[in-house]
Amino acid sequence: MQVIDARADAARINELFYQHIPESGLRNYWHPVALSREITERPLARTLMGDPVVLLRRQGVAYAVANACPHRGTQLSKGSCEFPGSRTLTCRYHGWTFDVADGRLVAALTDGPDSAIVGKARVRTYAVAERQGIVWIWLADSAPVPVEQDIPRGLLEASEVHTVRRVAAGNWRWHVENPGLGHATFLHRDSAYMRMVDMFGYAEGPSAVLGTEGEDGEWLLDKFAGMGNNREYPGLGTWPPKRFGEVIKLTKFADGPLGVNSIVSVRLPGIVRVSNFPIGGSLYYEWFVQTDADHYLYFQVACGYPKTLLQRASWLARFYGWGRWAGMVRFNAQDLSMTEDSHTYAKRHGSNDPAPLYRPDGFQLAWRKYALEQLRGGKVPELRPQPAIREATSY
Amino acid sequence: MQVIDARADAARINELFYQHIPESGLRNYWHPVALSREITERPLARTLMGDPVVLLRRQGVAYAVANACPHRGTQLSKGSCEFPGSRTLTCRYHGWTFDVADGRLVAALTDGPDSAIVGKARVRTYAVAERQGIVWIWLADSAPVPVEQDIPRGLLEASEVHTVRRVAAGNWRWHVENPGLGHATFLHRDSAYMRMVDMFGYAEGPSAVLGTEGEDGEWLLDKFAGMGNNREYPGLGTWPPKRFGEVIKLTKFADGPLGVNSIVSVRLPGIVRVSNFPIGGSLYYEWFVQTDADHYLYFQVACGYPKTLLQRASWLARFYGWGRWAGMVRFNAQDLSMTEDSHTYAKRHGSNDPAPLYRPDGFQLAWRKYALEQLRGGKVPELRPQPAIREATSY
Amino acid sequence: MQVIDARADAARINELFYQHIPESGLRNYWHPVALSREITERPLARTLMGDPVVLLRRQGVAYAVANACPHRGTQLSKGSCEFPGSRTLTCRYHGWTFDVADGRLVAALTDGPDSAIVGKARVRTYAVAERQGIVWIWLADSAPVPVEQDIPRGLLEASEVHTVRRVAAGNWRWHVENPGLGHATFLHRDSAYMRMVDMFGYAEGPSAVLGTEGEDGEWLLDKFAGMGNNREYPGLGTWPPKRFGEVIKLTKFADGPLGVNSIVSVRLPGIVRVSNFPIGGSLYYEWFVQTDADHYLYFQVACGYPKTLLQRASWLARFYGWGRWAGMVRFNAQDLSMTEDSHTYAKRHGSNDPAPLYRPDGFQLAWRKYALEQLRGGKVPELRPQPAIREATSY
Ligand code: FES
Ligand code: FES
Ligand code: FES
Repeated sequence: MQVIDARADAARINELFYQHIPESGLRNYWHPVALSREITERPLARTLMGDPVVLLRRQGVAYAVANACPHRGTQLSKGSCEFPGSRTLTCRYHGWTFDVADGRLVAALTDGPDSAIVGKARVRTYAVAERQGIVWIWLADSAPVPVEQDIPRGLLEASEVHTVRRVAAGNWRWHVENPGLGHATFLHRDSAYMRMVDMFGYAEGPSAVLGTEGEDGEWLLDKFAGMGNNREYPGLGTWPPKRFGEVIKLTKFADGPLGVNSIVSVRLPGIVRVSNFPIGGSLYYEWFVQTDADHYLYFQVACGYPKTLLQRASWLARFYGWGRWAGMVRFNAQDLSMTEDSHTYAKRHGSNDPAPLYRPDGFQLAWRKYALEQLRGGKVPELRPQPAIREATSY
Repeated sequence: MQVIDARADAARINELFYQHIPESGLRNYWHPVALSREITERPLARTLMGDPVVLLRRQGVAYAVANACPHRGTQLSKGSCEFPGSRTLTCRYHGWTFDVADGRLVAALTDGPDSAIVGKARVRTYAVAERQGIVWIWLADSAPVPVEQDIPRGLLEASEVHTVRRVAAGNWRWHVENPGLGHATFLHRDSAYMRMVDMFGYAEGPSAVLGTEGEDGEWLLDKFAGMGNNREYPGLGTWPPKRFGEVIKLTKFADGPLGVNSIVSVRLPGIVRVSNFPIGGSLYYEWFVQTDADHYLYFQVACGYPKTLLQRASWLARFYGWGRWAGMVRFNAQDLSMTEDSHTYAKRHGSNDPAPLYRPDGFQLAWRKYALEQLRGGKVPELRPQPAIREATSY
Repeated sequence: MQVIDARADAARINELFYQHIPESGLRNYWHPVALSREITERPLARTLMGDPVVLLRRQGVAYAVANACPHRGTQLSKGSCEFPGSRTLTCRYHGWTFDVADGRLVAALTDGPDSAIVGKARVRTYAVAERQGIVWIWLADSAPVPVEQDIPRGLLEASEVHTVRRVAAGNWRWHVENPGLGHATFLHRDSAYMRMVDMFGYAEGPSAVLGTEGEDGEWLLDKFAGMGNNREYPGLGTWPPKRFGEVIKLTKFADGPLGVNSIVSVRLPGIVRVSNFPIGGSLYYEWFVQTDADHYLYFQVACGYPKTLLQRASWLARFYGWGRWAGMVRFNAQDLSMTEDSHTYAKRHGSNDPAPLYRPDGFQLAWRKYALEQLRGGKVPELRPQPAIREATSY
């Protein structure tokens, strides 16, 4: 376990972060894109990190290719399967027929079997994997790593996996930095979810720890010493007001499944984990997959671990009766309203303009440092030998 | 009184005008932005000259600050007042709390009373004043002048003040140049309002006079010798056709309140005044406050001076029964259709491209010269010593 | 008759084509813009090749001028005719009055008969002609050629002329290149129209011939040796599947009116002709007139040649009962979906990025060569002396 205190390097870390961690997302990782049951023989069009992509199934296997015919640019999602039982997709315009596994042109139906173009054109393919009913895609040109490397064990081992997915306005980087106890106790204070769990106040002595906790691998863990509450702000008054109660039952969030104790954790390529959310006994993961310059797919996954039929019934009742709606839909919509503003602001001021940081942002700073140091396939210059430039940030 | 004949300097004036009088508006002046009754404890978001601004009231006083938290850019209009009775606004995202009078960060509710960021961040503030039920804002960084300096006396002294406000497509500079008798007798000829007052034809011998008339301060006055009517146009015919009547009752517009005799007048920062509009015995003022690159707030104010209860009842009956609808809403909507086209055209051709000017545009040219010479805080080079370039304009 | 085989010059032709044949369209030609019955005294606004244009009729004659007053840019389509019986159009804003035949300013109604601006301003005019109930416009500055030079004889001599017109998303160049037998038998295979005529398979031995056929002048003719059908594609299967029938009744399309035998032909400035479409005994022409950067007017014309009243009744019954809806509306809408994708793709990749071409694209390549060589008023460098660069294209 390594406590990351990045304050001394803040200015340099921020500069490097905006330079090396692209707005369009990290391609050298597996990202969730859809549910397995959504991928059928019929092509499905998506835009991912600016690429038009078409997803489809052939002989039971999911594939992804660029959604543009190399001939005249027709969207291949308008195409059809002309040879049932084959792995092909035929373009609607002139019948060019591609093997979706390797992208090669295997026939040009309007030019006969002897067409000279066969074998000379190719459509870009993307590696696809399916785990736990979710379709994962590798958007880089490089050879993909085993998909299990990029899926948390808490998801791989869950017996219940349920998602909420929506396209949000903004940039993924702002949403990865949303978690942390700085916002939770304030932004969400009036949500139905938060009123139930009765958390309100602020985290004291927060720190970021990179380490393992139980069996879900290495994460950047958001740790804190305790909760501050009902403090006196000179000249302003007491806050939070007494009426919200004084008992902070944060213990509710500790002791999560698989030994996850931290409430919030983050790992590359920008996965957020919350323990005991949206209902007790669960692990919650979210991904932010940039689609175009101003939108990203907000992919939320709740994982349950019931063992008996009775446990399963109880878990589902609590999830669909309360947690999904109050937590994943409503509570998290409050975040979306904030991260959209950050994007608008960054576009106006230039996204490299570092925000002034305050104490709870230590976790965000630690995330930036961790991302730079651990970035797969990235070539980020040394961080430490540089002298610290304390003055350049207000953290 | 000084007659402004700017023809000899036309080319140079036009060039300097587009150079020194910005499309985004003149910041060194007070502009109307809303009604006093619209500003409450609950924040109100507006965009003014490209700046996102939030207006709100604390302890009865109206304030304006930038509508973006300096921390992560959240719109402060989503914020709340966490300390009732204070002058603060708290950001929705992480609880940063600002004094809206000076913009200073006075608390960070998610970091406790000892937060080191307090006093180290600040949100931009704008000076605000309220007069006659209207909220005025000063958008420059410079120290504001007394607000009375920028509000015509005819408005300050009115006993009835009624407004029509809408966001129009276009640029404020084209609308300030809309008035003048060149357009009024033609564009508005088929409006219900114009048919009633029976004005139709064209102004003869127009000239622009910078001077005072009665008690409403110095304005650029649109003067003319008389009205031409039913003239013979060689090869075309007589115009206007007889059916519209030959009697031009322009005297209806002279003898306005406070000794204002000119029908139309203009002053900085782009205020248009019309006497006896939209009903007799009134003064009418309009402002054009640019919001974004393609829109401006069209802020119309009718001022009445009834003294007795009976006079007041009569004024209100005529205003709401006729003048507001026929004059300020419908008649002025005809102008909006024209000024929007000028904006579209200027965007296509570059707004520095001077239009060919004709005799009635002498008033517009005089306005440009006056604006350049009197611009507050502007540093406009000498106009006169330059030799006249008569050939460069078709005026 | 000259067989055009452009394969040896493919790379150079493609490069020159994108360089000399502009996205915005070919101005040195007559283009259809509206129906004669749509042009009345009341101005009609259109955007053509990026130019705002206003069309109107005076004394029975159709005229076109720029839709922007040179004074302040007001759309002249908002104007009126103030001198009935004259050829004038008066601007709505300040009454500037233009002769629509030569564009000269003949009066300024708000400045009196002695206005000095008269004769000193001018609005741009466009040559207009009317033939067969269609209004044709010449968008170049150059002197127009006789309009008959740009209208196919099959249209000039038709006794029935019926149109379908719509604004489509995309670029005209992609739609001119849509025809050819490469796409027809595949894209349209499931259209109601195609199922009736029972054409399905692919063209064998296609070649492009520049020549005359019957009485409709010189066209680039899409010729082919026969239709391939139900072939075996190694490793994939037989295609098209038997169920679609084996008899290709392409003869239905030969023997068109005026001796037109080829199914599809093309000529400058980008006119497509189809014989016996949308019903037997007809000639069909289509134009693609770019409006703005992303749209074009898709102007479709069906020409019939009935001589007796009975023939006429039969032609109209077949046209309105079947051909117009099944052919011109639905069948051709399939093309629009494809050409829009080509435009999106070209914008993403740069429109100069040559698509890989296959055998049936020989017709498109021949069209590019023909367009470059015959372009009116164009100065295209020699094509032939260059050594062939076979490797640069995948054709
Ligand atoms: S565009 Fe796909 S086959 Fe031609
Ligand atoms: S964005 Fe306003 S407090 Fe963080
Ligand atoms: S804008 Fe047309 S007459 Fe003034």
